[in-house]
Amino acid sequence: MSESSDTKKQPSKSQHKELAIKLGAIQRRAKDLKIPALVVIEGIDASHKGKLLTQMILEIDSRAYKIHSTHTEDQLPKKYPLLWQFWNNTPARGMIQFFDRSAYYLIQDAYAEGRIKKSEMARYLDDVKKFERQLSDDGVEIIKVYLQISKKEQAKRLEKLEDNPKTKWRVTQKDWKRHRNYKSNLETINSMIEKTDHSFAPWKIIDSTDLKTASAELYETVIEKLEAAVEKAEQQSTVAKPPREWLSYTGKDYLAEVKPREPMERSAYKKELKELQAIVYDLSHEIHYHKIPVVMVFCGWDAAGKGGCIKRLLHGMDPRGYDVIPVAAPTPVELSHHYMWRFWKEYPHNGKITIFDRSWYGRVLVERVEALCENKEWQRAYQEINETEQHLAVSGVTILKFWLHIDKDTQLERFEARVDNPHKSWKITDEDWRNRNKWDKYVESVNQMIDETSNDHSNWHIVDANCKMNARIETLKITIKTLRQSIDNFRKPPVF
Amino acid sequence: MSESSDTKKQPSKSQHKELAIKLGAIQRRAKDLKIPALVVIEGIDASHKGKLLTQMILEIDSRAYKIHSTHTEDQLPKKYPLLWQFWNNTPARGMIQFFDRSAYYLIQDAYAEGRIKKSEMARYLDDVKKFERQLSDDGVEIIKVYLQISKKEQAKRLEKLEDNPKTKWRVTQKDWKRHRNYKSNLETINSMIEKTDHSFAPWKIIDSTDLKTASAELYETVIEKLEAAVEKAEQQSTVAKPPREWLSYTGKDYLAEVKPREPMERSAYKKELKELQAIVYDLSHEIHYHKIPVVMVFCGWDAAGKGGCIKRLLHGMDPRGYDVIPVAAPTPVELSHHYMWRFWKEYPHNGKITIFDRSWYGRVLVERVEALCENKEWQRAYQEINETEQHLAVSGVTILKFWLHIDKDTQLERFEARVDNPHKSWKITDEDWRNRNKWDKYVESVNQMIDETSNDHSNWHIVDANCKMNARIETLKITIKTLRQSIDNFRKPPVF
Repeated sequence: MSESSDTKKQPSKSQHKELAIKLGAIQRRAKDLKIPALVVIEGIDASHKGKLLTQMILEIDSRAYKIHSTHTEDQLPKKYPLLWQFWNNTPARGMIQFFDRSAYYLIQDAYAEGRIKKSEMARYLDDVKKFERQLSDDGVEIIKVYLQISKKEQAKRLEKLEDNPKTKWRVTQKDWKRHRNYKSNLETINSMIEKTDHSFAPWKIIDSTDLKTASAELYETVIEKLEAAVEKAEQQSTVAKPPREWLSYTGKDYLAEVKPREPMERSAYKKELKELQAIVYDLSHEIHYHKIPVVMVFCGWDAAGKGGCIKRLLHGMDPRGYDVIPVAAPTPVELSHHYMWRFWKEYPHNGKITIFDRSWYGRVLVERVEALCENKEWQRAYQEINETEQHLAVSGVTILKFWLHIDKDTQLERFEARVDNPHKSWKITDEDWRNRNKWDKYVESVNQMIDETSNDHSNWHIVDANCKMNARIETLKITIKTLRQSIDNFRKPPVF
Repeated sequence: MSESSDTKKQPSKSQHKELAIKLGAIQRRAKDLKIPALVVIEGIDASHKGKLLTQMILEIDSRAYKIHSTHTEDQLPKKYPLLWQFWNNTPARGMIQFFDRSAYYLIQDAYAEGRIKKSEMARYLDDVKKFERQLSDDGVEIIKVYLQISKKEQAKRLEKLEDNPKTKWRVTQKDWKRHRNYKSNLETINSMIEKTDHSFAPWKIIDSTDLKTASAELYETVIEKLEAAVEKAEQQSTVAKPPREWLSYTGKDYLAEVKPREPMERSAYKKELKELQAIVYDLSHEIHYHKIPVVMVFCGWDAAGKGGCIKRLLHGMDPRGYDVIPVAAPTPVELSHHYMWRFWKEYPHNGKITIFDRSWYGRVLVERVEALCENKEWQRAYQEINETEQHLAVSGVTILKFWLHIDKDTQLERFEARVDNPHKSWKITDEDWRNRNKWDKYVESVNQMIDETSNDHSNWHIVDANCKMNARIETLKITIKTLRQSIDNFRKPPVF
């Protein structure tokens, strides 16, 4: 963390202009090098965050930045996890993303207003740290700025806003309440800043009593960070990347432990299916009524029957209550973001069930096997995924993960049956055969995935899918059990 | 419009299965041919829209369709024009988009609840017609289905929902009120259907008393439409496209009438700029307070100074109150939609000012000049644009359009100055020089654009920008005048 020195002098007009030109130039260089940057602008009330931000963006090519104005969700019926709006607004490569206020404000406000306890505050701040670390690992330069003014200056500015009939409405009772609590709020903020001043996302405290001086400091801070990033990127571009080698997993073999079940009788299957679907119908209404968000993940071998299981599950549910997200290869826009970005925008609000047909686990499966990412990238993905799912869980989201398992012979039979059936031949592609040739690598990857990402709140359910009917009944039963537990144990998450 | 005949027989299980297979097959064919389709499912309460929809989508490849569940905005603080949610959910080429309820329901409900008068109902229905015609012209196959049941059957279904403690909450007072008014509501609906049964978007009325029969009819309806579309597309693919010839505009020359002004004195400019910016600061707060949405469009010659005008306008405004949307060439995803689609998602909610740096007028400028679309496509765009802006206007949106005009010599001077300035040379590209070579074609296109798309609620302001200071002052003055009028005359639009 670095603070304004008390001796800062107001820059001359030409000095300020020079900084502005420098900012524009280094940003264009960063853009060319595809460096993404995140600039978080926080500050106490009336510290002129908006003015300073507007001034800064006027110096930057308008195609090179975006602004996210943090919104409080307390007035809206749709609630999302705290980090949802921030993950949805991370910078694409080459872009600068500004957060006008951020999760820090929301957490501090929830604490000040008594909606969360001190311990909860600490754990949400920890989730923000993980968010920042994940972005930083993905190459995002993070700059966090806190704007400060004295209590006296704050009073002056609030009064000025109140004196202008056009801006009077902006000053609320809450602003004055916070003003009265200036000292204790400042202590909370300082302690928060101290705890969240990470090397990969440091704070810069800027005194914004004098706007021109503050603005120059802000420019300097961003310029410095971007210059360092540009230098690093230029150096790295000359380092040759080592060839990617296959890293074996030699731990527990979960798939070998799957006990094959007796194939079901069709008549028994039909009867049980109908009964279970009736229960799911009721439960889906309860989920909606209690406003519980649910994430379901269907993973498994090609031709394991994911689609068929999802079909039986949805039968009778209301389309307003669920979304099915088929996951394919990422688009160019998605590739210009962190790999988790495209999933965040699909995560459900309260009362919605979102069903992923394939998922973010592609990072440690196909991307590992096909060397679509670096070894260190999929290696750190286990922790990233665990952190993400944990944040969802503490935000009240129920998580259900299935791996549908079939043996290699069953897969061959199904592939061949598909080829022979004119109504199903479109379902089988060259890619399926390619994947099949890498069966052993997938076995290792699946086993390691299960080993690394099974948690109390998001356990893997490995389902024997050699008999399709068995798999459908089993996934329905597990779903019913889990949804019942969720309804019984659901605690409303805090409102930010 | 076509109705179920009374003699419909319930299909056998195998007949139903055959239809399902046929549906899947024709959809895949439509997907390969990149035919987009929109299926609107409307129906009276408890007509089992949800069940029929769920059943149908289970037959379609999950990567080939999307569902939009129509939401009523009455509970939300952010209000958008009626068509906003529908434009944001039009199908990409090759996709089927389902609307689970649609604008028809919203309009009929607003009328039934007394939020709009009969005349307003007619004009919103007309806007829906324009929406459908625009999509149809762009190649979207539209199928509208209305599900009906008798009053007696409706009572039975509502009671069944009420009897189940898990689904009881779904039945509201309003449902029963509508049930009591069954007859008069049916009359309104029938008259609405009759008036909106267009050749390019016909209604199909289906009796959904028996689910299996209704489901088969629904499949047949969709299959028939897709089959016809596939046949048409296959025929068209064999017809050679004629070469695109330049179609001249010989009407009024608006640009020739622009009177050159005296260049401003810098000191007078600075003084006036400061005064006008202070007024804009106040007005932007009033706009936010009154929750008026504003769309501003900045078009003009390359190097006419659009960015500079926007910069002066934003100075002092709060970033939470505006968005600047720089418009570049469309992405592949955007190209797979109607050309207006990418602008709809940027249109402002109430209280927001959205500033477009270039805009949808690209359709009749660069796309016309560079032959990026067919002649008939840009020719019909004038009407489409007028319809769009009119819908925004009746939804309460203030529209402000600027054409910044410079003469050809001034442009050359500015291009050369940019090339010579190391801080500005990045602003000039080969494309700018290419565009300059087509100056005369652009003159024709701009004149025709102004001629065709100047309307009371969205007039073009042609600003002499040969002196940058003049242009900035002029755009500020026009903005101030327009915003003042908006604040004085603003009428809250109906809530849907």
